[in-house]
Amino acid sequence: MKIGIFDSGLGGLGVGLRIIDALPDYDYVYLGDTQRVPYGNRSQESIYRFTRESVDFLFEQGCLLIILACNTASAEALRRLQQEHLPTHYPERRVLGVLIPAAEVAASQGKRIGVLATLGSVDSGAWPREIHRVAPDRKVYQQAAPLLVPLVENDGFRWVAPILDEYLQPLLAHGIDTLVLGCTHYIFLKEQAQQLAPGVNVISPEELVPDSLADYLRRHPEITSRLSRGHTREFLLTDLTEEYVGLAQRLTGRALTFSRVEL
Amino acid sequence: MKIGIFDSGLGGLGVGLRIIDALPDYDYVYLGDTQRVPYGNRSQESIYRFTRESVDFLFEQGCLLIILACNTASAEALRRLQQEHLPTHYPERRVLGVLIPAAEVAASQGKRIGVLATLGSVDSGAWPREIHRVAPDRKVYQQAAPLLVPLVENDGFRWVAPILDEYLQPLLAHGIDTLVLGCTHYIFLKEQAQQLAPGVNVISPEELVPDSLADYLRRHPEITSRLSRGHTREFLLTDLTEEYVGLAQRLTGRALTFSRVEL
Repeated sequence: MKIGIFDSGLGGLGVGLRIIDALPDYDYVYLGDTQRVPYGNRSQESIYRFTRESVDFLFEQGCLLIILACNTASAEALRRLQQEHLPTHYPERRVLGVLIPAAEVAASQGKRIGVLATLGSVDSGAWPREIHRVAPDRKVYQQAAPLLVPLVENDGFRWVAPILDEYLQPLLAHGIDTLVLGCTHYIFLKEQAQQLAPGVNVISPEELVPDSLADYLRRHPEITSRLSRGHTREFLLTDLTEEYVGLAQRLTGRALTFSRVEL
Repeated sequence: MKIGIFDSGLGGLGVGLRIIDALPDYDYVYLGDTQRVPYGNRSQESIYRFTRESVDFLFEQGCLLIILACNTASAEALRRLQQEHLPTHYPERRVLGVLIPAAEVAASQGKRIGVLATLGSVDSGAWPREIHRVAPDRKVYQQAAPLLVPLVENDGFRWVAPILDEYLQPLLAHGIDTLVLGCTHYIFLKEQAQQLAPGVNVISPEELVPDSLADYLRRHPEITSRLSRGHTREFLLTDLTEEYVGLAQRLTGRALTFSRVEL
């Protein structure tokens, strides 16, 4: 059986390719819900429904384990999927998020932690909740950054600096020592964030995911033993345009082949 | 029976309220597909399907006539709806767009016409096609402006100027005398566009729609006679969040009451 990687769009390709490069033997299916991207501003109910439909699709494609490479989905839908959907429909399958490993690292490295995230992630309260679960005394400050995903997706990097700076100012005013880039798209803005927040420890969840997944697979032989090792990769999108293919190439530096699917 | 006004999101409220204010006696239903906004970057097939589902929903709500207050839907889906869908499913109902009236005005006022629009509208070629249908000798130059909708929807007006300026430069370099703001959201950027393009005749399709609709109703008594005059207004969204309600109030200056619906 395969490993699925899900994102609302193309931002998850960054972490997806890192996982594949780090653990190349397995069979992978990447699914991007480009027909309904972005998730960040939508209601919790919509984010849950879209994520559940996408996860079900990946299960039907033969995935045993799915990584939600999308912080919004991880924040808004993961817990409910694990508690309500998997036990009744797919008791032997697993869905993992990217938020908890990052929250644990942030809690271990920082005392005053700033989180930059989508509106949906901020409203869910998942970042403070998961950081405080590990370390209740940490100060956590959140800032919604709704324009960063459109800027990344529409090649707007040259306009990012003043917008990112305005989002960072309230966090810097709180004297943060650690900044979590709480959306898969923001990995493409890491250098700019570090320049605007000198001396702050900038954490990009994507960088932690491959190690976190490798660790999970070591601890769960009952899952790992059922994963096939065929070195196959499929990249599926719910909507396919030339612009999406061009964006994927710009973001990843690789020429990937995509297929369009209906959920 | 009612008049429906459809937009992919909240940008169509601008033109919707202008229509309602100009022709207040009728019964109106506004539908914004906020669960799947924005349409502008999606494939033609997705835009057609989403628009058809929304139109069908408005027909089920008792609408006889629907205005597509969305240039992307008008450019990508209107003709196919009128040719394939309405004749077989709703032969007595009507769907009108906002693109053709604006194209006709632009063709009558300008010789060198610039069009600022979403990627989907630009790719569809609908603006040059409709302008050339009326006046084949006009020069038409298009520019995709994918960041403007996110900027309007996320209260990013203070960052618009340099981005809008970069989008306008290629059009100005072509010596345009007329600029069409080819997306309902751009009406909120009209003043900024006029400042950046001094001496250019800036056309905002929304401003033409009420007159164009009044004219249509005068010419089609078989439609007008079947429209009820109850002064009711309903504002429906496919996804409802506090942020959407706040955005609607910021954009329109009115406190509207929204209901969430499933298509």
